[in-house]
Amino acid sequence: MENEPKLRMGMIGGGPGAFIGPVHRIAAELDGRIEMVAGAFSHLSERSRAAGVAYHIDSTRTYADYRQMIEAERCRADGIEFVAIVTPNHLHLPMALAALEAGIPVMSDKPATASYEEALQLEAAVTKSGLPYGLTHTYAGYQMVRQARAMCSDGKLGVIRKVAVEYLQGWLSHPLEARGNKQAEWRTDPARSGAGGAIGDIGTHIFHLLEYISGLRVMAINATLRNVVAGRKLDDDCNAFVRMDNGAAGTLACSQVAAGELNEIRVRIWGDKGSLDWRQQDPNRLTVKMLDKPEEIYHASSGYLAGEARAASRIPAGHPEGYLEAFAILYCDFADAIIAWKRGKALPDNLPGIEAGVRGMRFIERVIESNRKEGWVEF
Amino acid sequence: MENEPKLRMGMIGGGPGAFIGPVHRIAAELDGRIEMVAGAFSHLSERSRAAGVAYHIDSTRTYADYRQMIEAERCRADGIEFVAIVTPNHLHLPMALAALEAGIPVMSDKPATASYEEALQLEAAVTKSGLPYGLTHTYAGYQMVRQARAMCSDGKLGVIRKVAVEYLQGWLSHPLEARGNKQAEWRTDPARSGAGGAIGDIGTHIFHLLEYISGLRVMAINATLRNVVAGRKLDDDCNAFVRMDNGAAGTLACSQVAAGELNEIRVRIWGDKGSLDWRQQDPNRLTVKMLDKPEEIYHASSGYLAGEARAASRIPAGHPEGYLEAFAILYCDFADAIIAWKRGKALPDNLPGIEAGVRGMRFIERVIESNRKEGWVEF
Amino acid sequence: MENEPKLRMGMIGGGPGAFIGPVHRIAAELDGRIEMVAGAFSHLSERSRAAGVAYHIDSTRTYADYRQMIEAERCRADGIEFVAIVTPNHLHLPMALAALEAGIPVMSDKPATASYEEALQLEAAVTKSGLPYGLTHTYAGYQMVRQARAMCSDGKLGVIRKVAVEYLQGWLSHPLEARGNKQAEWRTDPARSGAGGAIGDIGTHIFHLLEYISGLRVMAINATLRNVVAGRKLDDDCNAFVRMDNGAAGTLACSQVAAGELNEIRVRIWGDKGSLDWRQQDPNRLTVKMLDKPEEIYHASSGYLAGEARAASRIPAGHPEGYLEAFAILYCDFADAIIAWKRGKALPDNLPGIEAGVRGMRFIERVIESNRKEGWVEF
Amino acid sequence: MENEPKLRMGMIGGGPGAFIGPVHRIAAELDGRIEMVAGAFSHLSERSRAAGVAYHIDSTRTYADYRQMIEAERCRADGIEFVAIVTPNHLHLPMALAALEAGIPVMSDKPATASYEEALQLEAAVTKSGLPYGLTHTYAGYQMVRQARAMCSDGKLGVIRKVAVEYLQGWLSHPLEARGNKQAEWRTDPARSGAGGAIGDIGTHIFHLLEYISGLRVMAINATLRNVVAGRKLDDDCNAFVRMDNGAAGTLACSQVAAGELNEIRVRIWGDKGSLDWRQQDPNRLTVKMLDKPEEIYHASSGYLAGEARAASRIPAGHPEGYLEAFAILYCDFADAIIAWKRGKALPDNLPGIEAGVRGMRFIERVIESNRKEGWVEF
Repeated sequence: MENEPKLRMGMIGGGPGAFIGPVHRIAAELDGRIEMVAGAFSHLSERSRAAGVAYHIDSTRTYADYRQMIEAERCRADGIEFVAIVTPNHLHLPMALAALEAGIPVMSDKPATASYEEALQLEAAVTKSGLPYGLTHTYAGYQMVRQARAMCSDGKLGVIRKVAVEYLQGWLSHPLEARGNKQAEWRTDPARSGAGGAIGDIGTHIFHLLEYISGLRVMAINATLRNVVAGRKLDDDCNAFVRMDNGAAGTLACSQVAAGELNEIRVRIWGDKGSLDWRQQDPNRLTVKMLDKPEEIYHASSGYLAGEARAASRIPAGHPEGYLEAFAILYCDFADAIIAWKRGKALPDNLPGIEAGVRGMRFIERVIESNRKEGWVEF
Repeated sequence: MENEPKLRMGMIGGGPGAFIGPVHRIAAELDGRIEMVAGAFSHLSERSRAAGVAYHIDSTRTYADYRQMIEAERCRADGIEFVAIVTPNHLHLPMALAALEAGIPVMSDKPATASYEEALQLEAAVTKSGLPYGLTHTYAGYQMVRQARAMCSDGKLGVIRKVAVEYLQGWLSHPLEARGNKQAEWRTDPARSGAGGAIGDIGTHIFHLLEYISGLRVMAINATLRNVVAGRKLDDDCNAFVRMDNGAAGTLACSQVAAGELNEIRVRIWGDKGSLDWRQQDPNRLTVKMLDKPEEIYHASSGYLAGEARAASRIPAGHPEGYLEAFAILYCDFADAIIAWKRGKALPDNLPGIEAGVRGMRFIERVIESNRKEGWVEF
Repeated sequence: MENEPKLRMGMIGGGPGAFIGPVHRIAAELDGRIEMVAGAFSHLSERSRAAGVAYHIDSTRTYADYRQMIEAERCRADGIEFVAIVTPNHLHLPMALAALEAGIPVMSDKPATASYEEALQLEAAVTKSGLPYGLTHTYAGYQMVRQARAMCSDGKLGVIRKVAVEYLQGWLSHPLEARGNKQAEWRTDPARSGAGGAIGDIGTHIFHLLEYISGLRVMAINATLRNVVAGRKLDDDCNAFVRMDNGAAGTLACSQVAAGELNEIRVRIWGDKGSLDWRQQDPNRLTVKMLDKPEEIYHASSGYLAGEARAASRIPAGHPEGYLEAFAILYCDFADAIIAWKRGKALPDNLPGIEAGVRGMRFIERVIESNRKEGWVEF
Repeated sequence: MENEPKLRMGMIGGGPGAFIGPVHRIAAELDGRIEMVAGAFSHLSERSRAAGVAYHIDSTRTYADYRQMIEAERCRADGIEFVAIVTPNHLHLPMALAALEAGIPVMSDKPATASYEEALQLEAAVTKSGLPYGLTHTYAGYQMVRQARAMCSDGKLGVIRKVAVEYLQGWLSHPLEARGNKQAEWRTDPARSGAGGAIGDIGTHIFHLLEYISGLRVMAINATLRNVVAGRKLDDDCNAFVRMDNGAAGTLACSQVAAGELNEIRVRIWGDKGSLDWRQQDPNRLTVKMLDKPEEIYHASSGYLAGEARAASRIPAGHPEGYLEAFAILYCDFADAIIAWKRGKALPDNLPGIEAGVRGMRFIERVIESNRKEGWVEF
């Protein structure tokens, strides 16, 4: 058990109607290492206040303006120790910059910013500040993703030759944005989402998982985008070829018009000795297929897993952990990062940070450019 | 979002080395409706204090004696509003009685007590007190268990004819209790576990699920027990026939020596129109097979689910929820029960309570009697 | 490739409307080692002749009376070398006896006879004749059943402790026998099926698989039978406890009123080192779960399989084989048996024979006796 | 039951050591409608004769030269009625032409020829001859492929928008062609396989399935090829984008260096109402996911399937059929085609024929051209 006092978190965004605000709250607090004590949940003070009540936040620490929160909290002895940014994408940059300038670490929902240029700007600010910055690429918190990552870095699969990653949803198969669905509205609105539709919302996740698990970097991409639903302003379907920095190659696909799919994330990596296969909808199992051997299923929380996977387990094998637990692992990593930073030590490498943020925004920008050119582009 | 203030919880047991204490803490607090503010985590004050620090409990509210906690907390304006009992089985009764006598609702780990007689005693006390009493039959908190229950009560399967439930683990395949494993020690010790080994530890869970989902009651049972591992003092393997109160019949199996199994809980129920099949290790799916129709897979958090299932969902379909979330649903039910009780309203029927506790202890007693007689016994 | 001339088969039964006749024909001929050249497909000469035409049998070798076929064929230089008996159960004995008396080997559909007494009578006749006798317990022909058997005999699982076998169908969930369904009619008619309903039709299969795979023998059984569908004359649902000759114990279940099930055969065996799990509806995979190791999936036709499994493979791994191929493996075994017999060599032990037939009939008789007594009976 | 006399088949190729010869023999004869009566199994007369003995062919009808077989058999009253060509790819054209010129229908292993030009030449010859020509795109014979095809043509999925097909093997992960593996040798040898490696051997299969199931035609392709294994002369890995003639788009992948994969064929098609998903390694199930409804699993041989799927079933639901049965369905289709042709009726449309052959060779040629150009090419 950890004996550090709980870290104090302030949330920006996440007010009534938001899906992701409560998820961040649960994830942050799940392991008992963080407590949400303040929030600027909405720029409308009524809504922010209502959210504060619902979250059981002291009413004096509920703010309508995130700058005001940062200012007020830094003057308190028990002020917030980091902010969690959970707003639509176009607001990520100014909020992160404000926090960093105030010396406050940042945990941000992804994508890091609304454009690649913004991401570079944020990267410079993070570097300059020396502060911990985390990006909630949630799926990187799954135990079996950590196991897969360990297996790639340990050479279990041999030399990686081939990859195939996909992230498929079907919920935008029809123009929900024209039918009053708030989640659909901002996600398909370039002003709030940036230049990427599905590629920003979910493509960045799968791009991140690819690099996170394989330990490789995408060197070139050849992508085709479509707006399948008539009238939609942003892409809702993408297929891409990728080339990795070690010579491996493969595919990346994401779609929000794959009717019938819920949240189908799958990562497959083939080396010259064997391969692995992970699906987010069955997250506690990792399939490993070594050449000419019986297929293996690794189960979460088993003693035979790699150390970094076991570290992401809370309960015995056979007791499923899910999305919220994966999310909470990122908050644990972030808590570790803050502690390491306070002590002047190296930050843990498990947590997706600003490098992942820049890569993700670069991914969006490169995909759009490749689609425009109808051909390969370098990273 | 709920605007009730958070309920204040005091934990009894759950100190260092316990698996289930942190699970209760996470589950209780996950949905933001409950806060653990006090605890008697161990009867050894050093250990209790250490746990309090780890749990971030105010040191003045960490106790070594649960009676002392009850006494001290009832005098505080911000005192605990309920206790969570997470000790070995033989302590459940005195602790629950002490709380009830002090007018404090009880959330208890299962089994309710260490014997059937104790359970009846507790039932009388709960009834007399009029207080909410919850029993953490965790698996009843899974969304798809709620869906299965709704389908049974809605007549989707027709008349239920046949049942088969099982709960298989393999971790006690060897005499770990003789090798210093604490979890194995108390579970195989009659003094701490009561008369049931596997049937108490996991059999009561699957017995409960059977009655909870089907809406039926077991009327008679014919069970065979074994102590497969040499020298073990309690049963580690059980197979049983059951007859239900509507004329249906089937089997119940549990084992802790099924080498290779992790936490394999499966519930199958066949009616004259179709059947359902649920596995805890794949908890977000429910298989439904109607006669002469395509098999169906119901997915958690889908819009087509029954209301009581949807109420147990936090995140969109395709985002797995697991054991901790199921556990937390029971705490939500318990919070609902406390609120209803305060308002003088009927308690919600989703939460396993003392009736389930009595049934569970009756199950253990009947199984042992059936095994002794080598034949059927009535309930 | 085998260079033996094709063995000549005569079929008894299997005329128009029969499901199993064409299956035997396909299975017998599939591997190019057997040719069906004669048949007494029905006792109605019109129907037998029609079947002969459909099967492309020379019209002079189509008979209405099996005795006539045996008589006529034994006089031909190119006469049949064995008979395949595919009639309803009550006819198996006289037909088998007639063939054996004529010195003709017998391949019989299961069960071997209509009663245990008949089975003993047949066993004596087989023994006396010294002729090959095969029983088409089809599922024993699956490659992964052979693999499972090899793993049990090789000690891979350690000492076998626990077993659970089941065979579930749902097609008799309603009284089809009263609605003109021929398959349902004879299967639920004691005059044609014998004393066992589901236990004879499918229970004998799963009983056989249990002994075939485990290499153990059932020593005692405690069974409960039900006639779930009102008015049905034979059992349609059975649950049983079994005790094996090495001290292992477990359950055996079969049902034809498990609505929604197709042909769900599952065999699970747990030893003190690990366990195996096979499902007929996914026949090319065998799950092996060793204690504290990753779960393994063995795939049919892989190089790492045991010799007796590889011998039952025709095509490369990843190319599914099914029920007909399994059936054909039994015919290959039977062809091997005839060749061995002709050469005076020991018969192969893979083929279920009269011992399995006697065991199966004993099983039916013991189950009925146990159900009557409501308790354990010895084998 | 069919009362047509058995059709007489002559095989070209398929001698000792060939995998596919025995498969064609089994498949052709499985349903009792065809008999192999002659063969030119090898151009080496010793080997051809040995194969003839193994196949139980009359020694006077075993030939070393296919032209000789055609000549000799056409003079017999009981001569062959069609040839099955099962040689390496570069021999398909001359053999097919010889048979067609002799007025003999042709069943050919795929690909139809060794080049696109040859395929056009063959198409002209087939058209001119008016003879039945079949191509054993085996996977098109699976019952659930027929069901998927029916669902696409019936509009069950709505307008098809997105497709993803893949065919992955791992057996060529290392240079087996340099280690004496015969199967690897000819498949990686341009002189015997033509210009395509994996794309010819397996890519044509998955290309065919895509068009066969969807009912759509590929209009444009953008493919990348790799020779992953050093020194290999032909491609062993391919990823491609495809555009369909109705505006749908998606991906096609094939690989023989996906270490750990056996014969992983998967077809996914998404419409605006729902999607389907079929895997060859689990061939008797078809997953159908309609938007906002429970996922469905259609099981082979069920009464609710489309007529063309039911027509491809031999045994009751729950009894798996596999690769050989699928192969045999194509031979049934071919037998139907010959009967229709003899009667002057329209040929059945289920059987892949020369159009599929031309498409397949065009596919290989277009993929190579696209890879050369690094961009899209039209079909």
